[in-house]
Amino acid sequence: MDMKSSPCAALRIDGARLWQSLMELAQIGATAKGGVCRIALTDLDRQGRDLFVQWAKEAGCSIRIDAIGNIFARRAGQDESLPPVMTGSHIDTQPTGGKFDGNYGVLAGLEVLRTLNAAGVRTRAPIEVAVWTNEEGSRFVPVMMGSGVFAGAFTLEHALAQRDAQGVSVAEALTAIGYAGQAGPAPAVGAYFEAHIEQGPVLENNQRVIGVVTAALGQRWYDVTVQGMEAHAGPTPMELRRDALLAASELVMEVNRIAVERRPHARSTVGTMELFPNSRNVIPGRVRFSVDLRAPDDAQLLDMDRALRAACARVAQERGLAIDVEQVVYFPPQPFTPQLVQAVRANADDLGYSSMDVVSGAGHDAVYVARVAPAAMIFVPCDDGISHNEIESAEPAHLEAGCNVLLRAMLAAAEVVK
Amino acid sequence: MDMKSSPCAALRIDGARLWQSLMELAQIGATAKGGVCRIALTDLDRQGRDLFVQWAKEAGCSIRIDAIGNIFARRAGQDESLPPVMTGSHIDTQPTGGKFDGNYGVLAGLEVLRTLNAAGVRTRAPIEVAVWTNEEGSRFVPVMMGSGVFAGAFTLEHALAQRDAQGVSVAEALTAIGYAGQAGPAPAVGAYFEAHIEQGPVLENNQRVIGVVTAALGQRWYDVTVQGMEAHAGPTPMELRRDALLAASELVMEVNRIAVERRPHARSTVGTMELFPNSRNVIPGRVRFSVDLRAPDDAQLLDMDRALRAACARVAQERGLAIDVEQVVYFPPQPFTPQLVQAVRANADDLGYSSMDVVSGAGHDAVYVARVAPAAMIFVPCDDGISHNEIESAEPAHLEAGCNVLLRAMLAAAEVVK
Repeated sequence: MDMKSSPCAALRIDGARLWQSLMELAQIGATAKGGVCRIALTDLDRQGRDLFVQWAKEAGCSIRIDAIGNIFARRAGQDESLPPVMTGSHIDTQPTGGKFDGNYGVLAGLEVLRTLNAAGVRTRAPIEVAVWTNEEGSRFVPVMMGSGVFAGAFTLEHALAQRDAQGVSVAEALTAIGYAGQAGPAPAVGAYFEAHIEQGPVLENNQRVIGVVTAALGQRWYDVTVQGMEAHAGPTPMELRRDALLAASELVMEVNRIAVERRPHARSTVGTMELFPNSRNVIPGRVRFSVDLRAPDDAQLLDMDRALRAACARVAQERGLAIDVEQVVYFPPQPFTPQLVQAVRANADDLGYSSMDVVSGAGHDAVYVARVAPAAMIFVPCDDGISHNEIESAEPAHLEAGCNVLLRAMLAAAEVVK
Repeated sequence: MDMKSSPCAALRIDGARLWQSLMELAQIGATAKGGVCRIALTDLDRQGRDLFVQWAKEAGCSIRIDAIGNIFARRAGQDESLPPVMTGSHIDTQPTGGKFDGNYGVLAGLEVLRTLNAAGVRTRAPIEVAVWTNEEGSRFVPVMMGSGVFAGAFTLEHALAQRDAQGVSVAEALTAIGYAGQAGPAPAVGAYFEAHIEQGPVLENNQRVIGVVTAALGQRWYDVTVQGMEAHAGPTPMELRRDALLAASELVMEVNRIAVERRPHARSTVGTMELFPNSRNVIPGRVRFSVDLRAPDDAQLLDMDRALRAACARVAQERGLAIDVEQVVYFPPQPFTPQLVQAVRANADDLGYSSMDVVSGAGHDAVYVARVAPAAMIFVPCDDGISHNEIESAEPAHLEAGCNVLLRAMLAAAEVVK
């Protein structure tokens, strides 16, 4: 995997060209605040896809569209019978999204192709750049829809039947934008790499340029409902209350403790809370809140699940309230492929970029692809860790560094033959 | 004040007649669920007022309406130059109100008049039954509007100028229902008693029939805003978070502790909370919640205010967040008149009713009247402490007991002359 002795050791991507492409794609759906709103399977998504396809064809690629609308731009290898070395990400955005989330991974792949073309490098295995459909899930759920179908996380039929708030189905929207492609089994992938902005503060906080992503955290999401007794705030003495918010507040602190005691990788969050009746002078009779637990392996995640349920049971018993815990989402933890992770780490070192091992706290297309192919991810910092926001930003030098690591890791996997 | 040797020692009100009147008035605005919706200054309120006025006239009373629509039904005394001994309450209800809140106090007063008439009792001082305008504040604020104007808590002009959600002013609504009466200074009141359902669980919990109300709790209401940092739940490690909900939850527990440490009379409640952005996988960046502190005297209330502010300052400092505390409401504590309170206590004992001293956690017309006249309240239990609810209920025997205490206390204050 080491490129030191490779004929391509001196090869570098063109950071300015990459930046230029990012800025050009960002104009499709550009918002007044400097962000991008390019929702999956809208006409703006079509325009973005068309631009990518045009660029990929100009780079000599053949284009394949699958039945869920994933685009694969293929640069032929010496041995076309080999499974391709693939990279990619998505170009759909959140409603108030930024220029880099997803787009960076797609255009870093394109930049790799352009770099290989400019240097006349040929690889044994073919190279493909994937644009996965509807990663964000803003209009259609489930999220990571294209890679999920590709990896068999759910069926094509299930995905195509989903409808947006206006009742339009995925199948209809794909046809409308001209990206309903060929059905068929997903082809084998030799190795998959995905470059992405971190969407968190760890690299910036540690002043590192490259995040070597070892795993994606598993997730368990819950709805917790505390049933107490609604009563007037004035006439009800403290000792006769069954205050649902007081119990919920104790549980928010317990939920936090669950991950704090399992640092550095575990995460726990209460993001939503609703009070009933939510009136200034009424003791809350019912409180409903969400819990989001994440951990890098299933044993830890299960341990956290047990800690949550134990805390709820204890608080219910101590406070004389009914507390219901319902798990509503489960994503298994997904370790990335050690050999590919090591390729990312070693090439970052070779190139002189500071790096550190990180976990991915969020979902990415790579997490699904990793179910069916060797896979790894490359993170680069984003300013203040902010993403899913129009002010999302990243340093050109960091984007260039991540793309150089991607180039090298892909070349190592695909084998340079000339 | 002791009635033992009084010529009226054997006098009792007619519990069945009282109950009958309560049920008849409850038909005006009756709801399908057995409650009452008779919002202040609506046509239903007019119908209720008309019924009371008719009953009072049938009981030989003269009727006086003041400029804010308060009704005073007067039974002449031997010495008409003496200030009247007054009782009363309100007949407006919450939108999903019950049959007893307010109505009991008014009709208990009417029942006292009827009892005196039936027994041919004459009093030295005149006796009046007041129906105070808009106690509930469901349509027009401020709450306790009629008694507030009477007591000078705010001006008549301020009250008349208030408008409901449809833009109708109090002045217009009063004219529309024919209850815009004569302006003029509030007359002196010799003593004021108000019978009311407790609207809380203390009497029921202690199995007592009569609550001897010693004071109304003072209230300080606040808006507290915690400003943290919004961030994605997945990619943000625990140690880099500034979770506004975590700080708010700690404060909910601190707020609770403030009153628990000052039992039995202090109360503290967080009734409302809003999270921003309130998304399942986003760490809350901002949380806003209400605080309601109540105490029987100003020194304790101020001490609780200091404890709240200290807790907010500590949590802000420890967690690196900004916390803003804004007081939005202040009602001073209102002790009732010891001599009248003792009359309630002694007469409950004489009549063989179990009783206990309680405080009023909620506002009542008597709290304002106590600013300008000697005043006391008599509480009776309501089922499960529930009020402001269509299922609000009370036992006929308890309502009868409270009315007998009212009769005796008023006779003691007004002096029986025959």
